[in-house]
Amino acid sequence: MPVFPVRHAPDAEGRFEIAPEDLRHLSRVLRLKPGDRFEVCLPDGSRAEARLEGEGRRRVGRVLQRLSAQAETRLPLWIGLGLIRFSRLEWLVEKATELGVERLSPLLLSRGRFGKIEEISENKINRLEKIAQETLKQCERITSPRIDPPMDLRSFLKLSGEDAARRKLLLEERSRAAPLREVLGNARAWAVLVGPEGGLSPEEKSQAREAGFTPVSLGATVLRSETAALYAAAALDFFRQAREEGS
Amino acid sequence: MPVFPVRHAPDAEGRFEIAPEDLRHLSRVLRLKPGDRFEVCLPDGSRAEARLEGEGRRRVGRVLQRLSAQAETRLPLWIGLGLIRFSRLEWLVEKATELGVERLSPLLLSRGRFGKIEEISENKINRLEKIAQETLKQCERITSPRIDPPMDLRSFLKLSGEDAARRKLLLEERSRAAPLREVLGNARAWAVLVGPEGGLSPEEKSQAREAGFTPVSLGATVLRSETAALYAAAALDFFRQAREEGS
Repeated sequence: MPVFPVRHAPDAEGRFEIAPEDLRHLSRVLRLKPGDRFEVCLPDGSRAEARLEGEGRRRVGRVLQRLSAQAETRLPLWIGLGLIRFSRLEWLVEKATELGVERLSPLLLSRGRFGKIEEISENKINRLEKIAQETLKQCERITSPRIDPPMDLRSFLKLSGEDAARRKLLLEERSRAAPLREVLGNARAWAVLVGPEGGLSPEEKSQAREAGFTPVSLGATVLRSETAALYAAAALDFFRQAREEGS
Repeated sequence: MPVFPVRHAPDAEGRFEIAPEDLRHLSRVLRLKPGDRFEVCLPDGSRAEARLEGEGRRRVGRVLQRLSAQAETRLPLWIGLGLIRFSRLEWLVEKATELGVERLSPLLLSRGRFGKIEEISENKINRLEKIAQETLKQCERITSPRIDPPMDLRSFLKLSGEDAARRKLLLEERSRAAPLREVLGNARAWAVLVGPEGGLSPEEKSQAREAGFTPVSLGATVLRSETAALYAAAALDFFRQAREEGS
């Protein structure tokens, strides 16, 4: 059964508002009735058992008992990705949410699928947010990746450059660049820049290198853009876990 | 531009048959005309430049020159996965093909989405094969994962058990099982068993353990089935590359 996020702290009696889409899920999909119990994630990250109370539009949740105070594990990874077909971007948002990725910036690059910023409308960004929210419930998380409106490369390089401790990686296809493993070092946070289909232009690559992005190869394999981003996320998570065990 | 797989060795003059769907792609999407050149992967794994020759139904390809004799890198991973929603399985087939996964077996488990073997028809398996073939072109591969018709757990355990050198892993959610990194050892090939939504039943887990599958945790994160399978594929590929560099 999914864990439902509670967005605002419950009142003194433990009551909290249930988002309309969660209410629909609880009543129509899970067929909960007033008095039935379900699990929630409170805004502080702890899990709790809650009860459905009231009728119709006045239905609310009420916290019965806290189950754990375990904070979620997030992956301190910022993905900058050239615009790809929207259905592939939707998919990446879902998977990035499952993996706890921190931030996802769709980028307007010269070879991207969309030349104009207008072509990813606010509606489409809202759609991505909604996918992330749905995924949170499935994977028992409370925080979804921050999803930026499409930005140009210069903005992404500038913003990601503000955090000097973040290791910045430029994923390259079939290149002679160093393999991922060799450039990870001791960083605790990463940014990866992934080209659209067709890759970054030579000029964009040199801009990225000047901004501190290290070219890195994922091996001989040619991956689609969204697969490369997810591969990097899984490999970084695996690497981070291995390091934590070792330390 | 995609690389088109050539299924049968070219004749003495270098001519080869082009599959109807590739012909459509070449002429309608890429708008190639007789005399135009395109890239192919020959059955021996080498890449070659080819020319489109002839008209209408008599169009064939002709090898002009070999470009490389590089064999593709495959990931010796066999994924056994409880049945999930078909669109998610389609997605996994695409990603597994990109990553060069060896074999994918949809499994009939007690908590799977489909109770009856009939519900994944031959048509659906053909659809998965087609997705794999399309993906090969995009990612410049020649070999797609072997996709089995749905089988029961006992068959999967028996078949995967025939290769004693293959390391067998049972992916568990939020378990106290050992982390992936710790159980990889020196194996050069792996099988992973991933439950459907809801996981394996306790009985299925104990069958898997008896058959030599080691329970392993991917960390605190709760992942959808297909994401867990892909995470394992990316992490194993990363691990394998790191080991090869080290050796």
